Amino acid sequence: MKRRKYTIGIDFGTLSGRALLVDVETGEEVATAVHEYANGVIDERLPDGGPPLPPDFALQDPADYLRVLEVTIPEVLRAAGVSKDDVIGIGIDFTSCTMLPTFADGTPLCFDERFRADPHAWVKLWKHHAAQPEANRLNEIARQRGEAFLSRYGGKISSEWFFPKVWQILDEAPHVYEAADRMIEAADWIVWQLTGLEKRNTCTAGYKAIWDKEAGFVSDEFLAALDPRLRDVIDTKMTRELHPPGTRAGWVSPEMAQRLGLSTDTAVAVGNVDAHVAVPACTVVEPHRMVMVMGTSICHMVMAETYRYVDGVCGVVEDGILPGLYGYEAGQSAVGDIFNWYVEHGVPAYIQDEARRRGLDVHRLLEERAAALLPGESGLLALDWWNGNRSILVDGDLAGVMLGYNLSTKPEEIYRALIEATAFGTATIIRAFEDAGVPVDDLVACGGLPGRNRLLLQIYADVTGKVLRVAESSQTPALGAAMFAAVAAGADAGGYDTIQDAAARMARLKSDTYRPDENRHRTYARLLNEYAKLHDYFGRGANDVLKELRRVRANALAAKAALH
Amino acid sequence: MKRRKYTIGIDFGTLSGRALLVDVETGEEVATAVHEYANGVIDERLPDGGPPLPPDFALQDPADYLRVLEVTIPEVLRAAGVSKDDVIGIGIDFTSCTMLPTFADGTPLCFDERFRADPHAWVKLWKHHAAQPEANRLNEIARQRGEAFLSRYGGKISSEWFFPKVWQILDEAPHVYEAADRMIEAADWIVWQLTGLEKRNTCTAGYKAIWDKEAGFVSDEFLAALDPRLRDVIDTKMTRELHPPGTRAGWVSPEMAQRLGLSTDTAVAVGNVDAHVAVPACTVVEPHRMVMVMGTSICHMVMAETYRYVDGVCGVVEDGILPGLYGYEAGQSAVGDIFNWYVEHGVPAYIQDEARRRGLDVHRLLEERAAALLPGESGLLALDWWNGNRSILVDGDLAGVMLGYNLSTKPEEIYRALIEATAFGTATIIRAFEDAGVPVDDLVACGGLPGRNRLLLQIYADVTGKVLRVAESSQTPALGAAMFAAVAAGADAGGYDTIQDAAARMARLKSDTYRPDENRHRTYARLLNEYAKLHDYFGRGANDVLKELRRVRANALAAKAALH
Repeated sequence: MKRRKYTIGIDFGTLSGRALLVDVETGEEVATAVHEYANGVIDERLPDGGPPLPPDFALQDPADYLRVLEVTIPEVLRAAGVSKDDVIGIGIDFTSCTMLPTFADGTPLCFDERFRADPHAWVKLWKHHAAQPEANRLNEIARQRGEAFLSRYGGKISSEWFFPKVWQILDEAPHVYEAADRMIEAADWIVWQLTGLEKRNTCTAGYKAIWDKEAGFVSDEFLAALDPRLRDVIDTKMTRELHPPGTRAGWVSPEMAQRLGLSTDTAVAVGNVDAHVAVPACTVVEPHRMVMVMGTSICHMVMAETYRYVDGVCGVVEDGILPGLYGYEAGQSAVGDIFNWYVEHGVPAYIQDEARRRGLDVHRLLEERAAALLPGESGLLALDWWNGNRSILVDGDLAGVMLGYNLSTKPEEIYRALIEATAFGTATIIRAFEDAGVPVDDLVACGGLPGRNRLLLQIYADVTGKVLRVAESSQTPALGAAMFAAVAAGADAGGYDTIQDAAARMARLKSDTYRPDENRHRTYARLLNEYAKLHDYFGRGANDVLKELRRVRANALAAKAALH
Repeated sequence: MKRRKYTIGIDFGTLSGRALLVDVETGEEVATAVHEYANGVIDERLPDGGPPLPPDFALQDPADYLRVLEVTIPEVLRAAGVSKDDVIGIGIDFTSCTMLPTFADGTPLCFDERFRADPHAWVKLWKHHAAQPEANRLNEIARQRGEAFLSRYGGKISSEWFFPKVWQILDEAPHVYEAADRMIEAADWIVWQLTGLEKRNTCTAGYKAIWDKEAGFVSDEFLAALDPRLRDVIDTKMTRELHPPGTRAGWVSPEMAQRLGLSTDTAVAVGNVDAHVAVPACTVVEPHRMVMVMGTSICHMVMAETYRYVDGVCGVVEDGILPGLYGYEAGQSAVGDIFNWYVEHGVPAYIQDEARRRGLDVHRLLEERAAALLPGESGLLALDWWNGNRSILVDGDLAGVMLGYNLSTKPEEIYRALIEATAFGTATIIRAFEDAGVPVDDLVACGGLPGRNRLLLQIYADVTGKVLRVAESSQTPALGAAMFAAVAAGADAGGYDTIQDAAARMARLKSDTYRPDENRHRTYARLLNEYAKLHDYFGRGANDVLKELRRVRANALAAKAALH
């Protein structure tokens, strides 16, 4: 009998890292271990103290990432009783754009006493939003110069992305910028730590650092137009050599093999983004199927063989999700967050009491009551912009809207209308894809929400008119990372030569299939038509009341601050 | 020393009747008594049983009104220790249009065994909405005929009013219609019971029965166009002889004097409408001041020396509020009802818990938290159409809208936005008056809300830019009825010759004055501007999404009913 072989996928999230040991042959998830970052999200003060951080800073400590490796890898090996010799590969996925400045040998600047007190020497987490001024100037200059790359990103580069963050370091801490030999995504940095080799991936480069397989990075002239000192940043602090997902970056270095209890024969895959690595873990390795990572927000991914301009998508990157295909990414900035907001701030005592009496989670009780309603029965319709609109309006200044209240409107009606609104948001994204010539044949959901809310899944099927299935794994990013690790190891070592082969064996869907009901779909089509009218009316400038409310609010807050 | 003289005002509400004994010289409210109607609002089955009533029926039992007289009048006399000889007058006010069919002697048909089992023999309460088909046909025919009266009622006759109700009796119970010698407002019927004389008032006729001082009632031809059998209804079952408020209908009849413990020298004023009678009780006896009766809804009344067409007001009636002036009435169909809905269905447990811990009413806690916010600080804006829009859109099919939600929106922000929305609704009504050439100089509030909510009053002042004061009496309808009773008695009997004289002595305002703050008014002007845009967009047909939601809802409910 053949010895079973394993890979380890490591998913670096916002608050913790998770290792998953997977049987390469069957995809069985044999063991898992989670380690919370000691310093979590650093948004008030640096770990050593010092003055309060400026607003919108969100930093992390790279030592926390190393600690995840040190804690979780030995733990899954021990728990599974698996020998290090049977671990043929390691893959990692990371939040992105999460980036840091390092010295030439990969040591983070914040590990050096000379720089430790400077916030800009630390990791800038994906949700560090303090580079908004740089993003605004970058977009303005790109528009003035007619830079073609804008069209690949829905017309706008986000403050969360790589160059605004690099530029902020240069603006606010030029000595840190100067001292940094490398500016690198955390995903690539951790692979460097594992292998000793700086091998960067196409995925984070494409989605976050304005890289394109054909056009390459932005031009040095464009960078010089931002700031002359940025002209050579790509060649001096980054690299133009990039590797698609599944590429083997190298093997676990002898030093790391020692530290983590691994073999130096363990292949390491190049880094990847958490959402994207979930795609093959959802069994999706072909064009025109939409993967939705559903949690506090939704990330939508579709692949296609050709490039199409899709209005308002977050990014289109060749080899960005899987080698050989264009990866399209879109998103909704709040989904589960809206339901959580409602349960926290909008659910009356009588619902809370009933939930407590019946030993039910409030979400479950609301779902149960909402499931008894027919589409349209509530008379309510909402725009799901509680945290702005990521796709397809790309406008963080929008806000939520609810229409149709009356004196007998019930909590479960509001809850259902909120779910429906997020489904209309997804339907609007699908429509944008299809209008642009990127068909979406069916939907596969993964993430935290699908496991908990069947009503939500049925509503998404009914609203979109597409069949929806759910990934079997509840930890698709880690599973996807383990699958890419199997590809990095290769078939000769007991892995696979392609991600398609890996997906065929290691990924699975649940047996439940959510099929659209024709009657419900017809009713939702009427409501979606109304949603679309309101979406354009409030979202495209015909009535900018949501912006005006924001301005009035900003004035009020300023007036209040002046009083104190 | 002169003997003190008293009048009694009796306010017939929806669920109970209240008597108030008032010192004529000082307006002091000496004693009050309330009696709840035994049969309340009859909307399920008749008191004797029988089949369920059809939808939208709302009936009452006239015996309950008589019982109010029998219980409360002796009680206030006893409580105050006042002799019947010192009670110089009685005035009554009533909900309206609340009407009933009677025999020639005033006996209600429902008191007769032959008719008792027929719902149409009972009192139709103001909120009986089952005559909507008749109202629709009436409006349609009036439009086709170009009837001028429509313009006095904002272009539409309500299903709540007199002729739709009479017509429904004819349509559905022709034998009841046939047997009824009189069709009469409950306000006039109770005066008839007190005096033995059928003396009808201009107020209910003008606001509810399409009567005008110059034009009289609608034409017989118009009535015949509705149904030939209605042609002579005015001359055979009503009367064209009408009396303005404050007219003495007669004296308490010997039989009633005996039954109620009153003197036959007690003058009885003609009947009146609850909201309108509150106007002089708010000290308002001159043009261009707006009285707002603020409770579950708001009724707005303004008087002027001239007739102007005001888009969307409920009615304009000469002598309708006070003799010699045009009385304009407008309204908001839900105000306090919206706040109550929110407290019942939208306030989270942590607010309920804090209120309980601090021994506060939830409304008070929300008010306290909302008062700490500046105008605009919530980022929210609402359309206050939870129960449709009475003025100035006259459209019951509209529904509530809230804009500007985000993930940190708090309950007190929503509460404040709801209050502000109702203030914007009032400001919109004031604007309609002023645009039509009916200036509104200041505001006087009465009713249940003002006594409880200082923040609300300040917001109304800030939004409208008008000084707002509050009536001292918490029972202005009953006080107003007592004031008209003093006028009916006349100065010679110890009362007054005019309602102006009565108001000068018997009515008072609280000392608190709510003055608009310039800064807050400026901010609210920006928000009101946005409210106005949304009001017209959703209310005047540019986007009929609220109607579409209603249609979709009706379909859903029909589908659900078909399932069972």
